[in-house]
Amino acid sequence: MTAVPSSLLRDLSALLGPKGLISDADRAPYERGYRYGAGRAAALIRPADVDQLRSVIRYCHAQDIRFFAQGANTGLVGASTPDDSEEQILISLGHMTAIETLDPLDRSMTVQAGARLSAINAAAAPHDLFFPIDLGADPSIGGMVATNTGGSRMMRYGDVRRNLLGLEVVLPDQDATLLSNLTGLRKDNSGLDWKHLFVGTSGAFGLVTRARIELHAVPRRTAAALVVPQTQAAVPHIIGLLENALGDSLTACEGMSRRAMQAAFDHNPALRRPFGGDIPDYAILVELGTSLSDRIMPDLDGILVDILGSACEGPAALVQDVLFGRAADFWAIRHSISDGVAAMGQVIAFDISVQRSALPAFRAAAIDLIEREFPQLILCDFGHCGDGGDHFNLVWPNDIGPAREDRAPMIARLRTALYDLITTEFHGSFSAEHGLGPYNQGFYDRLKSAPERQLTAAIKDRMDPKNLVGNIRFERGSLSPAPPPTA
Amino acid sequence: MTAVPSSLLRDLSALLGPKGLISDADRAPYERGYRYGAGRAAALIRPADVDQLRSVIRYCHAQDIRFFAQGANTGLVGASTPDDSEEQILISLGHMTAIETLDPLDRSMTVQAGARLSAINAAAAPHDLFFPIDLGADPSIGGMVATNTGGSRMMRYGDVRRNLLGLEVVLPDQDATLLSNLTGLRKDNSGLDWKHLFVGTSGAFGLVTRARIELHAVPRRTAAALVVPQTQAAVPHIIGLLENALGDSLTACEGMSRRAMQAAFDHNPALRRPFGGDIPDYAILVELGTSLSDRIMPDLDGILVDILGSACEGPAALVQDVLFGRAADFWAIRHSISDGVAAMGQVIAFDISVQRSALPAFRAAAIDLIEREFPQLILCDFGHCGDGGDHFNLVWPNDIGPAREDRAPMIARLRTALYDLITTEFHGSFSAEHGLGPYNQGFYDRLKSAPERQLTAAIKDRMDPKNLVGNIRFERGSLSPAPPPTA
Repeated sequence: MTAVPSSLLRDLSALLGPKGLISDADRAPYERGYRYGAGRAAALIRPADVDQLRSVIRYCHAQDIRFFAQGANTGLVGASTPDDSEEQILISLGHMTAIETLDPLDRSMTVQAGARLSAINAAAAPHDLFFPIDLGADPSIGGMVATNTGGSRMMRYGDVRRNLLGLEVVLPDQDATLLSNLTGLRKDNSGLDWKHLFVGTSGAFGLVTRARIELHAVPRRTAAALVVPQTQAAVPHIIGLLENALGDSLTACEGMSRRAMQAAFDHNPALRRPFGGDIPDYAILVELGTSLSDRIMPDLDGILVDILGSACEGPAALVQDVLFGRAADFWAIRHSISDGVAAMGQVIAFDISVQRSALPAFRAAAIDLIEREFPQLILCDFGHCGDGGDHFNLVWPNDIGPAREDRAPMIARLRTALYDLITTEFHGSFSAEHGLGPYNQGFYDRLKSAPERQLTAAIKDRMDPKNLVGNIRFERGSLSPAPPPTA
Repeated sequence: MTAVPSSLLRDLSALLGPKGLISDADRAPYERGYRYGAGRAAALIRPADVDQLRSVIRYCHAQDIRFFAQGANTGLVGASTPDDSEEQILISLGHMTAIETLDPLDRSMTVQAGARLSAINAAAAPHDLFFPIDLGADPSIGGMVATNTGGSRMMRYGDVRRNLLGLEVVLPDQDATLLSNLTGLRKDNSGLDWKHLFVGTSGAFGLVTRARIELHAVPRRTAAALVVPQTQAAVPHIIGLLENALGDSLTACEGMSRRAMQAAFDHNPALRRPFGGDIPDYAILVELGTSLSDRIMPDLDGILVDILGSACEGPAALVQDVLFGRAADFWAIRHSISDGVAAMGQVIAFDISVQRSALPAFRAAAIDLIEREFPQLILCDFGHCGDGGDHFNLVWPNDIGPAREDRAPMIARLRTALYDLITTEFHGSFSAEHGLGPYNQGFYDRLKSAPERQLTAAIKDRMDPKNLVGNIRFERGSLSPAPPPTA
C-alpha cells in the first residue's frame, strides 16, 4: 500500500475547510471505543455534507488511504475506532446530524446518518411517535444501521432493519458512487432491495449518509410484572403463554439471573427491592404496553393479574411467583445490571442468541461448562429472552486467581469453548445484536460457513475494490488493502 | 452459447430417474403463465430433492444450459414460464413440497420451496397459527420469496421478507453451492444477512430450496366497515386516524373505486349490496382483527362504531358515510373485483405504489392523464391504500376503438406515461408486489437508477457467472449467457 502522504492534512483541509478537521487536542473521545478498541488515526475529519464526504472518499481511493465512519462511537465490538497503524482516516459524522423530514401521516422520518437516537425521538415526540429501538446507549442512526441494533423491545417492534424504509450510501469506489433510495415506499419489489447489504455489515460495504426510518405510536399506558418461573425450562412456555394472550401488547420479556439482579441491588441502593426474601434464581421482567385508549383495551393491570395468576395455579404451574409493580421500577433494576456487574470484577461479555425455545437448554449446558472448567467465574446473565437473546456475561472477581493481565489465555479458552457450544450444539449466534468488529473478527472467520464468507468477500470486493473501508476483514487476506481481486 | 445437447433428456433422466421428467403430454400448465408469459422449454424436470437439483445445476453449468425454477406458476410478471427459445430447462419444485418442521413455541416452520401457502396454513392451523400473507392465489413459498409478496394484510403483518427467518439456496455456479441458514434466529448480527439478496429478485440469483418462516396467531375475532370518505384527500387522514386509534388491531385498509365495485356487483350477483342508492366514488374496506380474548379487548364492533362515528361529525368531517357489516361480506366484494373487471373488456393492469400520503394526489394526476389522453379507458382501481399500494387497473371496453390486436402501440404509450408519472413525479414503484419479470423488464431498464442497476448486475455476475438462471436480465447484455466478467 501507499504510505499516508505527508500532504494529508493540507489536502484534507483543502477539501473540507478548516472546520472539517478535528484537532489533535480533541482526539481522545474519538480514538477510544466505549468498551473495546483504541488506536490512532492518521487524521480525524468531520465533513459538513455528503458532497464533502464524497470528495474525501475519492481522494482516499486515489491515494490508497484507508478510512471508516464514526457516528456516536457507542459500539461494543471495536468497529468505530481506529487501529494502531496511524494509517486510517476517521470520518466523524458529527456535522451530519439533521432531522430532514418528518411525515406524521406516513409515520416516517428522513435523517442524516449522524443523528442520534435521542434527537430522533425528541423530534418525533410532539407527534406521539417514536423510533422503537430501545437501548441504554444513544447511538447515531448510521451506527444503528451498521450493527442492526435490536434492544429491549425487539420482540414487539423488530430491529433496525425492520424499521428501515430507505437508505443513502456512499460507496468506497473511485467515483464515491452515491446509492440512494429515500422514497420510503412500504411496498416496492421492482428490483434488488440493496439497502439490506448495508444493514449489520459494520460499515464495511459503504458509508451510510442518510436513512429513512419508520416511526411507531408511543405506548400511552403500561403494566409490568416480575415473573419467577417454576423452572428454567418453563421460561419459553411462559413467554408463549403471554404472547398468545397479549399479542402485540406484549412489549418486553427480559430475563435476569439471580447474580445479575444481586449486582444491580448491591450497586444501586436507590432501587426498590421487589423480593421480600431471597432473590430468586431467575426472573422475567414482563411489560404490557399499548397506544390504544382505555375504551379499547381497559384494565391493563387486571389483564396481567389474570393471565399470570392462572399460570401460578395447579400441579403443572409454570410460574412460582409474580410481583406486580410499576414498569419504571422494574426497568431500573434491569438497567442497573451492567454497571453493577462491572463493579464486581472483570466482565467477560457474550452477546449471544439461540432459538427462544432452546434458551433453557443452552443455559443449562453453558452453566455446566462454566462450573466444570471455569469455577472461579460468576454468571450474571440477563437479556432479551423473548427473542432468544442473552447477554451471557461472566464476572471474574478481582481477588480470585491471577491478575487481569495474566488471564488472557484462560479467557480465550473460555470464549472458544462457549462460542463452540453456542454455534455448534445450539445453532446460535456469537453476535446477536452488537454486530461485527475487530473484537469478534476471529469468531467470524472460524464460525461462519465457507460459502457465506466467500459470498460476503465477493460483495466486499465489488463495493470496495481497494479494501479501504472499515475495521473488519471479509476475506482471508490482511486488513491492509488487498491486491486487486484475481478471480 | 452452446446449443442444447441432443443427449439432454437422456442426461437428465440419468441424473433424476424417470420420475424426474415431466412428459410432453403434461407440458401445458407449466409453459403458460397465469397472466403473462408463454413459451417452450427444452425440458421440464421435477427433482426429488436438493441433491438432485444440485446435480442438474452442475450439469447445466458444465453444458451452458439455461434454466429457472417454477413453483406454483401463479406469478403475474412472466418470470415463472419459459421463453420461446426452447433452450431453457424448467425446474418444477412440485416434488419438493414438504412441511419439515413446525415449532409452535418458536412460532416458526421450515418448509421446502415448493410448499404452497394453503399447505403451510393447513399445517399451522391446529396450533392457531398462520403465515400472514393474504392473497387470492395459492403460490409456493419459493415463488413468494422471489417476488416478496405483500397482500391485503401487509400493513399489519408485513411482507414475505419480514416473515422470513431463514433460507436455503442453491447458487447457479460450477459447484451448485448450497447456501444455508435455517437456524431461525430472531436476532443474529454476526455477518451479512445474505437471505435478503434472494428476496424479491425473481430467482435470478439462485434457486430457493427451503425457507424458515415466522407464524402468527390467527385473529379470533374481526369487525369491519365500508368507509366512504368525504373526499379522496381525506383517505390517508382516515387511515392515520384508524391507525392511531386501533394500533395493530387494524388489519386491513383496502380501497375500492366506484367502477371496481360496480364490476364486482355486475359480475357476481350473489354479493350483498351494502349501498342503498348509488355506489360511492370510493370506499375503504376497514378491518379490525385481534387474537386477543374479549376479556382484553371487548366489543370490537362498538369500537369501530365509536371511531368512525366521530369521524363523520362536524364541518371538517373526514368521513361521509360508514356501513357496518360482516367482514366476510365486504371481502367478497373486494375479491370479486378482479374477475368482474376482466369481464368488462381488456384489462391493462398496473401494480404500483406511492407513499400512502401521496395516494390521493397520484390518483388525481393519473385520472387527469387518462381523461385527457385515453378517454376510452375506464378506471377500476382497487388495492392496499393502507400501505400506498394501488392496483391501478384500466379497462378498454371490447366495443370501443380498434380491435385488441391493434391496441398495442397505444397501450405502450399509456404504460410509459403512467410509469413516468409514478416514478418521476411521485417517487413511486412500477412493481409494488408482483416482482420483476419479462413483463416489466423494460421498465426496470429505464426507470431504475444506473448505480442500482450496476450494483445488481455485479451481484448477478458473482452469483451466476454464466448468466444461466432466470427470466430477467440484470445487465445491459442479452439474455443469452454473458461473456466472463472482465472487471
